[in-house]
Amino acid sequence: MTSSQQPVAVIGLGNMGFGSAASLLKAGIAVHGCDLGAQPRARIEAEGGKAFEKAGEAAAGCRAAFLFVVNQAQTEAVLFGEGGVIGALPPGGVVVNCVTVPPDFAEDVAGRVIDAGFGYLDAPVSGGAVGAASGQMTVMGSGAPESFDAMADCFDAIARTVYRMSDAPGDGSRMKMVNQLLAGVHIVSACEALTLGIKSGLDPKVVYDVICKSAGNSWMWGDRMPHVLDNDYTPKSAVDIFVKDLGIVLEAGQNLNFPLPVASAARQMFMVASGAGFGAEDDSAVAKIYAANSNTRLPDGDQR
Amino acid sequence: MTSSQQPVAVIGLGNMGFGSAASLLKAGIAVHGCDLGAQPRARIEAEGGKAFEKAGEAAAGCRAAFLFVVNQAQTEAVLFGEGGVIGALPPGGVVVNCVTVPPDFAEDVAGRVIDAGFGYLDAPVSGGAVGAASGQMTVMGSGAPESFDAMADCFDAIARTVYRMSDAPGDGSRMKMVNQLLAGVHIVSACEALTLGIKSGLDPKVVYDVICKSAGNSWMWGDRMPHVLDNDYTPKSAVDIFVKDLGIVLEAGQNLNFPLPVASAARQMFMVASGAGFGAEDDSAVAKIYAANSNTRLPDGDQR
Repeated sequence: MTSSQQPVAVIGLGNMGFGSAASLLKAGIAVHGCDLGAQPRARIEAEGGKAFEKAGEAAAGCRAAFLFVVNQAQTEAVLFGEGGVIGALPPGGVVVNCVTVPPDFAEDVAGRVIDAGFGYLDAPVSGGAVGAASGQMTVMGSGAPESFDAMADCFDAIARTVYRMSDAPGDGSRMKMVNQLLAGVHIVSACEALTLGIKSGLDPKVVYDVICKSAGNSWMWGDRMPHVLDNDYTPKSAVDIFVKDLGIVLEAGQNLNFPLPVASAARQMFMVASGAGFGAEDDSAVAKIYAANSNTRLPDGDQR
Repeated sequence: MTSSQQPVAVIGLGNMGFGSAASLLKAGIAVHGCDLGAQPRARIEAEGGKAFEKAGEAAAGCRAAFLFVVNQAQTEAVLFGEGGVIGALPPGGVVVNCVTVPPDFAEDVAGRVIDAGFGYLDAPVSGGAVGAASGQMTVMGSGAPESFDAMADCFDAIARTVYRMSDAPGDGSRMKMVNQLLAGVHIVSACEALTLGIKSGLDPKVVYDVICKSAGNSWMWGDRMPHVLDNDYTPKSAVDIFVKDLGIVLEAGQNLNFPLPVASAARQMFMVASGAGFGAEDDSAVAKIYAANSNTRLPDGDQR
């Protein structure tokens, strides 16, 4: 049995994981942070958490393990690999998987975790690094009501809204897939449109402001295009994340026999950006491809 | 010379034109409304305007003519055709072109109107039928400052925000082109994502709500997807409008030697929807194509 006094493990301390761990600590919840990097481990200790290099060591004695690793392969490794969560988490503990993974994989891994005697929540998140750091994420979750209840204090700490799609793991990941289709297409269309506006002679800052007030606006336009205006491609979320996430979308589409022409076009542009060497830069670096392919000069960052 | 006591002609009384004419009348500005249809003429008379069938008859005695016709060909006809605005508008009157037209055409027509002794504002609008009816449109304008000044009371009546891109006609249409690229892509990606979510087994209403609060949100998602949920494809703005508007975007891209892979993919989907017989339906009818191409059942409208 577990109790709400036990710490919570956060596996993977990138932007989303670190922000969530910090939000948990702010809410008075003890955190075991886990990352392969010495720097994120030092940061989480500075915030008052305990730091670990191995997932299993972090999960020992915890009532839950929140996963914030990068992809399906890492999820598999930190759960079931040597020194993983499943061999260490106390019986009855809950695995909360916040990683964007294929819905079919979410179903599969949920079955294996539950068979091993744990709870499982399929709980992808939206809201970016800023949302994670401020405890304002959106959770798109599915899983057993008792697992949601057991995690209520943690979700209160990290999220503004927790959507419970259904009791079936997989539906949270399906919802995240729909969101990522839109988010990815909107980033690419924002880069396409802003660069076209610049090429046609318009002032980039004015184009940005007008769209923010017009029917062409999107959450991604407002969030990402300032990076282009500022000429600052420090990754908040990298190009390669969307190569992966739109890959998950297209794979799900193929499994459902569902053609996705616009998501396909958008993913190709992320692949072009990655292939051209910008994979680790901010996803708004797709604008550099549009600029290179049209002899357009992007802002040099001195405007603002 | 013209005076602010003279009426204003509104040429073309579709959703945008009628809403704008009504907003002008509400602000105490006399309106000469012009449309080929008897029904919009009767509606504008019921609102307190005078109705005309010919553009020139409407423009006679007016200080300005606002154009809300459908496309470049109609703009050409109502301005320069027989019985058109240019032969009837008093000298010094202002042509305010709110039609979405190619930027190069906007420049060309501005030159001819100005050479004929009139003012010209390149003034495309955004905000949809609702924005027009409530006087809350966004104007993306360019042209001579004195023409903007002369039209200040009219813009106050129809728009919440008037962006003056520059003194050069053409820049307003360039800004609108950027907006329409985004708007068109966002409508198609919304239809693609919502239908994929439904196909994967999620509740359409829940998908709608979650995206409204997530990073995948767009203005178009919030505005158009309720039509799909309600199974109501009464045209607020028709599929064929976006076949035209994204055609303008692609033509401008070609003229600038600027590749537009995502806008191209989106326009193809509007063309598919039009080719399949939905051209006069609401632009959200693109969802029907995704549904047909994936054997997905869209909401029947009984959910809400």
